[in-house]
Amino acid sequence: MKIALDHSRETPLYKQLEQALRHRIESGLLEPGSRLPASRPLSVELGVSRITVESAYSSMEADGLIERRAGSGSFVARRQAVGRVLLSAEELPSWQRALLVGADRPGIEIGLGIGGGGDEATVDLATGVGDASLFPLADFKAAMASALSREGSKALGYADPRGVQAFRTLVARVLSSRGVDATPEEILVTSGSQEALGLAALMLRGRGREAIVESPCYASALGLFRSLGYAPRGISMDSGGMRLEPLRAALRDGRAAFIYAMPNFQNPSGARMDAERRRAVVELAGRYDTPIIEDDFVGDLRYEGRDLPSLYTLGGSGVMHSATFSKLLAPGLRVGFIAAKGPAYERLLELKYCLSMSAPRLSQEALARILSVGRYEAHIRRSRRRYAERRDAMLGAIADCLPGFEAKKPSGGLFAWLRLPAGLDSSALADAARRRGVLVFDGRPCFADPGDPDAGSFLRLNFAAESPERIVRGVGALSKAAASLGYGRP
Amino acid sequence: MKIALDHSRETPLYKQLEQALRHRIESGLLEPGSRLPASRPLSVELGVSRITVESAYSSMEADGLIERRAGSGSFVARRQAVGRVLLSAEELPSWQRALLVGADRPGIEIGLGIGGGGDEATVDLATGVGDASLFPLADFKAAMASALSREGSKALGYADPRGVQAFRTLVARVLSSRGVDATPEEILVTSGSQEALGLAALMLRGRGREAIVESPCYASALGLFRSLGYAPRGISMDSGGMRLEPLRAALRDGRAAFIYAMPNFQNPSGARMDAERRRAVVELAGRYDTPIIEDDFVGDLRYEGRDLPSLYTLGGSGVMHSATFSKLLAPGLRVGFIAAKGPAYERLLELKYCLSMSAPRLSQEALARILSVGRYEAHIRRSRRRYAERRDAMLGAIADCLPGFEAKKPSGGLFAWLRLPAGLDSSALADAARRRGVLVFDGRPCFADPGDPDAGSFLRLNFAAESPERIVRGVGALSKAAASLGYGRP
Repeated sequence: MKIALDHSRETPLYKQLEQALRHRIESGLLEPGSRLPASRPLSVELGVSRITVESAYSSMEADGLIERRAGSGSFVARRQAVGRVLLSAEELPSWQRALLVGADRPGIEIGLGIGGGGDEATVDLATGVGDASLFPLADFKAAMASALSREGSKALGYADPRGVQAFRTLVARVLSSRGVDATPEEILVTSGSQEALGLAALMLRGRGREAIVESPCYASALGLFRSLGYAPRGISMDSGGMRLEPLRAALRDGRAAFIYAMPNFQNPSGARMDAERRRAVVELAGRYDTPIIEDDFVGDLRYEGRDLPSLYTLGGSGVMHSATFSKLLAPGLRVGFIAAKGPAYERLLELKYCLSMSAPRLSQEALARILSVGRYEAHIRRSRRRYAERRDAMLGAIADCLPGFEAKKPSGGLFAWLRLPAGLDSSALADAARRRGVLVFDGRPCFADPGDPDAGSFLRLNFAAESPERIVRGVGALSKAAASLGYGRP
Repeated sequence: MKIALDHSRETPLYKQLEQALRHRIESGLLEPGSRLPASRPLSVELGVSRITVESAYSSMEADGLIERRAGSGSFVARRQAVGRVLLSAEELPSWQRALLVGADRPGIEIGLGIGGGGDEATVDLATGVGDASLFPLADFKAAMASALSREGSKALGYADPRGVQAFRTLVARVLSSRGVDATPEEILVTSGSQEALGLAALMLRGRGREAIVESPCYASALGLFRSLGYAPRGISMDSGGMRLEPLRAALRDGRAAFIYAMPNFQNPSGARMDAERRRAVVELAGRYDTPIIEDDFVGDLRYEGRDLPSLYTLGGSGVMHSATFSKLLAPGLRVGFIAAKGPAYERLLELKYCLSMSAPRLSQEALARILSVGRYEAHIRRSRRRYAERRDAMLGAIADCLPGFEAKKPSGGLFAWLRLPAGLDSSALADAARRRGVLVFDGRPCFADPGDPDAGSFLRLNFAAESPERIVRGVGALSKAAASLGYGRP
């Protein structure tokens, strides 16, 4: 047991030892029932007298923290208040208390449940990713093993801050195959596309206070922009995408730092920006000299129609394009990327290097292997087929079980965006659904303006992560939940 | 070949096709000598007339981009200007041109060479990490395979944004073993300790313009703080650490957002803050209500003496403590962490979630396995023994070959900090050394004030990454380089 005692402090040594042990016990590092070292060897190890150790033990025994049993030693008492050492506000320095101010600001919803995984009884229509059981685990295992064998300890070393060259080349090919023209030199690998958005937003801090976003918008982008000090300004959408008049008005106001858009199968609405609108948005952004951050989080998951030109292809150096393999291969890898041209690339690279050096090398090496042998294409084809079936199952179930609700059929992606009947509140319905064993994503945090009349009227439903049978079951439970609140079928 | 053509654009289809192909060729996505699809199947695939494809090909042939051979098809010409498509400043939007302003600011040195790895001929005394050949590659392989087998597709999913619970518990044990008291609930796992520093600095943005740092200071921390808008203010050090008088003066000025300190075996100086100074710095910071960011990047690599209490243990909720396994296990894993109490922990977690969601799950699972079976302790013991020998080899070689130079013996860590004879410039010596096959780290970017008289007078030498023989060879080459500039032994 290593404990740093400080002979020069005023606090007596036995008290220091007691504090250190008490902390270990209260925090659970020393488990209830575990044996403490005998006083003689511990005193030798710590370079203190045996009396010091005995005094500390006696004091803890008096407090019921430990139990001493004659002939067998000292043990951590079995019943303790184990857990986090909670600090009262009085103990905090003022700078910490200042952090409490504004801590109730909206939009930052931390998915602490993420990673826990769903269970058989709960249908998860709330998640933001694809079906983990379809992830190519065996391919990934093989690719990891191959990377470690071929690269040896290099695979554990730092990567080029831009990203592993072979991986960037393959990313450029994947992008090209979906009609996004970017060279490997335009690609910067990041810790997930969330970091890519963060770097772009950080880079543009000086330009203005407003982040122009679609309304509704990806909730974690809103949280990110707010946490960096931006005020998000939502632009309502029609069937073609972001409406041009409010966009022009926002740009004319001159407070916009950037436009953030997800033109393909948007999170949360599933909507796709049409080709004409894409050109118009790029043209407007150019006229008002405003950068566009394009987020193509599931560009590969198209179920119908054809690829449309990306904003990046249309707008050249006026646009930055971020994407990820998280949604389709392995969310926890945290490998995304951003494409940019000109000085923006160099500044993003600097920021990336300053903030987190480089993306994990082994993950990039493994992904490069999966991409290079065509496994990714096969995986995408399989995922597309499955997800399209599931989308149809969900929309069918909605039509059957949720009269008065509305959802457009998305032509790709992961989400259906369900409009609730007038008067039914999305938070109330999400709660009622959870009690019936189905998790849905309340659309409220997707609105830049919490006072937006639409803010309480939508749920985001993931149709990709569960089987068609479970989707139908989930929508059925949602229907019952709505009925319990007096809406839809009784 | 998938190419997005837009029928509604004014640009003729053949021109769109040509532009798309030209881009692929110029960027190297279509390699020299590769065959292009024949015009008939391509026209069918793209839904255009054959004339369109023929026109595009003819235009490119006229420009020498492709070669058409009768009877065998069209090929990308073998000699091309391949590489990055460079944009002239005229083509850039104004917001991009604005990014060029201030792009020459000091302190951000991006290690693009990192990841390339050294070669037999070059002795690398410049690196910031330990010896990759000592990294426990076999343990790591086994741990990865075990995590993938045991966790299945969950290992590829998102982690808890705080970090994998089992991993945080083991991190708390490792910290406890080096005298840092933190519960698992106080630990936030990050993408390397660089991200940990970035989160803390971002959180404290509103407090003041100055980042109070040791002088010299870890260069990448200076770059990070500057990139977030801080002005670093260096506090000179004596044998006990940061000097108290200039520190008090800096805090009294009221512009300090935080104090950043590396009390153990500092990068770059190798210096250790003594116990009395630690208490005094914590006490001063408390008096002026200024948070401390403590960076313990190699706390485990102590070769002599005993552990001293961490600032975190001394300062409680007034201190945040970051550390990493990068330097000793696998730099490219990008797994670090920060310990914090109270509201600071919650705000750091929010920022972490907003900026990059969560740290890579598989890496945490693998590290947890290595930590739980005691492999880490064995690895640390082995590394300590080796590195201490290498340190002695380096200091011996410096004493033998570099008269007029000075280096104190560090009691831990990775670096010796070499003061050059008066008049010899560190950049000139680093250049001359590189020409003689030895890489050293020029100390210049480690100074907050580029005009500091010490800024051109130091080299940082890594004694951990190379064998004793190669260290002696490297110091010999450095001695010759100095002699070529008229210093030391001829």
